[in-house]
Amino acid sequence: MSQPLLHNYWRSSTSYRVRIALEMKGIGYEYVPHHLRHGDHLDPAYLAVNPQGLVPALIWTDGALVTQSLAIIEFLDETKPEPPLLPRDPHGRARVRMLAQMIACDIHPVNNLRVLTSLRTLFGAGDEDVVNWFRHWVNEGFQPLEKILAFSNETGKFCHGDTPGLADICLAAQVTNNARFHVDMEPYPTIARIHAACMALPAFQKAAPKNQIDAE
Amino acid sequence: MSQPLLHNYWRSSTSYRVRIALEMKGIGYEYVPHHLRHGDHLDPAYLAVNPQGLVPALIWTDGALVTQSLAIIEFLDETKPEPPLLPRDPHGRARVRMLAQMIACDIHPVNNLRVLTSLRTLFGAGDEDVVNWFRHWVNEGFQPLEKILAFSNETGKFCHGDTPGLADICLAAQVTNNARFHVDMEPYPTIARIHAACMALPAFQKAAPKNQIDAE
Repeated sequence: MSQPLLHNYWRSSTSYRVRIALEMKGIGYEYVPHHLRHGDHLDPAYLAVNPQGLVPALIWTDGALVTQSLAIIEFLDETKPEPPLLPRDPHGRARVRMLAQMIACDIHPVNNLRVLTSLRTLFGAGDEDVVNWFRHWVNEGFQPLEKILAFSNETGKFCHGDTPGLADICLAAQVTNNARFHVDMEPYPTIARIHAACMALPAFQKAAPKNQIDAE
Repeated sequence: MSQPLLHNYWRSSTSYRVRIALEMKGIGYEYVPHHLRHGDHLDPAYLAVNPQGLVPALIWTDGALVTQSLAIIEFLDETKPEPPLLPRDPHGRARVRMLAQMIACDIHPVNNLRVLTSLRTLFGAGDEDVVNWFRHWVNEGFQPLEKILAFSNETGKFCHGDTPGLADICLAAQVTNNARFHVDMEPYPTIARIHAACMALPAFQKAAPKNQIDAE
């Protein structure tokens, strides 16, 4: 295989993270869309490739399967180190991973499609309940994230200094996702500023959900 | 400060992960308990230290704050490399991070205390609903995890080869947590076998919830 394959879905926030990293690294890839709402990811052919049936999943050029967006991005960073997506010093790396995981572990998993669907089917949640749930967990995570970013002199044009990296990737994908649920960004000026700085970069634009071949 | 501080809670699964890593590395630390069910973590004094108000949070010997269990563990691994908690090769590192994140991103966040509490307060979920919710997400994650572990020749006595690491830490903490909800482990012989191998090690035992000073 000359190019890696990326199993993904245009609107999946975790797929968006990986697409940004691939674009930043300048790694060409084959885009394999899976329509999550139609259940494409539960197709036995896909489950044979990726037993978890989720996206994103990267098939590297040597055939290796890597799933989980943060694991994929760190793999890309270790395999093709330029431009780096993490700082070199352990303290900086810890800060960037912490910021990334505040989104990737504490906000996104509680708000993804399969959880929102379960709230509807198990507890009869309606559209308004789902929107309120989504906004609640974003706000729970964004309030401390805004504080940490606003009060640290390690924050620059981006989450950590003046070059974009892993934390910015997670931040940008989450803010983009938020728009669907009309999350009020007014309490989060630092997050909004960093999001705008990200979206001015070609990699973030090219990887954006609306610019994918399966976008509706 | 001669020793790091760990803000944590005996029964928190993410706190348990960090305690295991500290024990494996032989790093002494001061244990600062926060009683999650009593809302200690929402105390203004603690919020001034950690704006997210969650546990675990590590205060390193130089005063640096690191939160998010996986970020903390990678920080410990980079700061005190022996014994290593991740393999050296990018493919192995990706596999271990993937296995860890299948638990840390797809199972645990949907099942932690604050989410279970929200199901009760927002949707009137009862004890049985909460138990079913917990088991559902464990099973959704453990089915593919069992497959990946059982069918890979990279799996050894532990998740990746014959030495314990980051993936085993997440696996052991999750299986321990499962017991409170009586998750049937019979469909997961490989996971159960690795859990048993972990629990035979002093680091996993010493760090176990029941052996902490704030255990009830």
